Amino acid sequence: MSDTAVLALDWGTTRLRAFRMSEDGTILERRDAPAGIRAIEDGDFEDAFHTVVGDWLTAAAEPAPLIVLGGMIGSRQGWFEAPYVPCPANPENLADHAIAAKTESGHALWIAPGLSLSEESRADVMRGEELQIFGALDQLGPGKHLLCLPGTHSKWALLDDGIIRDFRTYMTGELFDVLRRHSILGTTIEHAVWSDAGFAKGLAAGRSEAGLLAHLFTVRAGTLLETLPVEESGAFLSGLLIGSEVASATRDLAKGSEVCIIGNPDLTDLYTPALSQHGIRCRQLGEYTGAHGLFRLATGLRKRR
Amino acid sequence: MSDTAVLALDWGTTRLRAFRMSEDGTILERRDAPAGIRAIEDGDFEDAFHTVVGDWLTAAAEPAPLIVLGGMIGSRQGWFEAPYVPCPANPENLADHAIAAKTESGHALWIAPGLSLSEESRADVMRGEELQIFGALDQLGPGKHLLCLPGTHSKWALLDDGIIRDFRTYMTGELFDVLRRHSILGTTIEHAVWSDAGFAKGLAAGRSEAGLLAHLFTVRAGTLLETLPVEESGAFLSGLLIGSEVASATRDLAKGSEVCIIGNPDLTDLYTPALSQHGIRCRQLGEYTGAHGLFRLATGLRKRR
Repeated sequence: MSDTAVLALDWGTTRLRAFRMSEDGTILERRDAPAGIRAIEDGDFEDAFHTVVGDWLTAAAEPAPLIVLGGMIGSRQGWFEAPYVPCPANPENLADHAIAAKTESGHALWIAPGLSLSEESRADVMRGEELQIFGALDQLGPGKHLLCLPGTHSKWALLDDGIIRDFRTYMTGELFDVLRRHSILGTTIEHAVWSDAGFAKGLAAGRSEAGLLAHLFTVRAGTLLETLPVEESGAFLSGLLIGSEVASATRDLAKGSEVCIIGNPDLTDLYTPALSQHGIRCRQLGEYTGAHGLFRLATGLRKRR
Repeated sequence: MSDTAVLALDWGTTRLRAFRMSEDGTILERRDAPAGIRAIEDGDFEDAFHTVVGDWLTAAAEPAPLIVLGGMIGSRQGWFEAPYVPCPANPENLADHAIAAKTESGHALWIAPGLSLSEESRADVMRGEELQIFGALDQLGPGKHLLCLPGTHSKWALLDDGIIRDFRTYMTGELFDVLRRHSILGTTIEHAVWSDAGFAKGLAAGRSEAGLLAHLFTVRAGTLLETLPVEESGAFLSGLLIGSEVASATRDLAKGSEVCIIGNPDLTDLYTPALSQHGIRCRQLGEYTGAHGLFRLATGLRKRR
C-alpha cells in the first residue's frame, strides 16, 4: 500500500463512504458500509471509524495522511459537532470553518461544517450535499449553475463561480413516503404499480406547483371516479410531488436552460421529464461526487495545518 | 311525542348525528353518537340505525316519517351506495339522485348522493359537506358565495344562487397530522406548544402558497439555526399549511371579499387571520348546518314520493 495522502469519509445518516486517496486526489481504494450515524450504537463512532478505516491508518507511511470527515457526522447527533457556515460559501470557507478533533487513539481529524441559510421567513441547512456539489466543480467549470440532488430531502443549489449562493431543501421523497404509508392515499396507492402514464399525469398536475394541496386529493378522488386508474395512482403522486418541486426550484432559484443533477439514475431519470416540461435540459453529473468534494476540502485544510 | 315528519341522519366516518324534525323543519330532538361508519363492526348498519333512532321510529305516528341519510353512509364502504352527482348541483339535483332503500325491518329510507367533479388533471368528491352548505342557504341568500369547511380534509365550494358550481378538497388537517406523527418534523414539533407568533410566521410563509415544499423544511432548519423557536414550530407548520390552503382556494375558486365558514370555532378561528392577510373577511355561519341541508333534501324527496 502506498501513497495514502488523504483519508476522506463521507459519513451520513445511513451510510459511511470511505476513500483512500493519493496526493493528487486519485481514489486508491474505496469502502461503503451501512454504518451511518443512526446505526451507531451508544455513540461509539470511534469503534466504527477503526472498523472501517483502521487498517488504512496502520498501513499508511509517514507523514500521517490528512483525515477529513464530512456529512451528518459533524451534526449535533454526530461524533464532533462542526457548526454550520452561512451561505454564500465556497470550499475554502468550508475549510476555514472545519473543526480540528482527535480520536481516542490519538489520530488528528478534520470535521467539515454544513451550510446554512437564514432568511426572514425561511431557514435551510445541508450537510454532505455541499461536498458533492463542490466535488463536481471541475466538471462544471466557472459561471452559474443550478444543481439538483434528488432524494428523501432533495437539495437544489445555485452555484456561481464555485460559490454556493442559495439553496433549498424539498421534502419530496419523505412526503411521498409518509403519504403512501400513513395517509388515506395509502389505501389507494398500495394497489399501484409503476406507470409512465400516471407519472406524466402527475407531472402535468404539478407543473405550476399551484394547488398542490388540492391536487393531492386527486389520488383518492380520481381513483373513486375512475378518471385515474388505481394502478397509476402511485406514479401520479410521485409525478405531482416531483413536478411541484421542479416548478418551485426553477422559479425561486434560477430560470436557466439547464439543471445539473447528481444522484442515482433510478431517481434522477424522473427529473428529466419534469424539467423538460419547463423546457429545461437535464445534465447528469454522476451518481456520487462527494469524494472529490472532500479532497477539495483537504486541499484547503493543508493550508491551515 | 308528536309531529315527527322527518328523521334526518348525517352519518359520517366518525360520527352519527340524528335529528327528529317537524313538518316545518324545526329540530324537535337531536342525538350525536360516535357510531361513524368506521366504528360499525361487520357492516351491521341496521343494528346501529335502530340503536340510535329505533325509539323514534316506534313512537312516530302515521304517516311514517320520511327518513333521509347523508354522508359517508352512502359511500361504497357504507350501508347503501348512492353514486356521486356531478357538479354543478343544487339540492333538487341531490334529491333527484337519492337512492331509495329499505331496512331489514321494512323501513323505507332515502340515501343522499355525494358530489363529484372531474376535470382533465383534477378530480374531487365530497359526501356530507354539501348538506352543510345547502343547510346554510337561508342564511346566505342568493348570489355568489365562497364557503370553507375546515378539517382533516378541508372543503371549499363556490356557491352561485344555491348551486355548487365548483369545489376543492385540501388535505390540510391530515397532512399536518402525518407530518407531525411520521416525518422528521415530528421530533421538533413534539416539543412545541400553541404559539400565536409561530402561527403568524407560518401564515406569512404560506401567504403565496409558492414554495410550500421548501417551506416545510423550515420547521426543522429554523429550529436548528434558532431562527424559529422550537416551541413555535408546531404552530408554524399549522400556519404554513392553512396559509397555503387559503392562498390556493381564494386564488383558484373566487377572488371575493368574504369567505363564509362552517365549523368548530377552535378551527375556524385560525382561518380569520389567514384570510385577513389577503384582505378577505371571514363570516362564521355556525358550527354545524347539516340538519337543515338534510331537511332541504327531504323537501325535494317529498315531491318524488
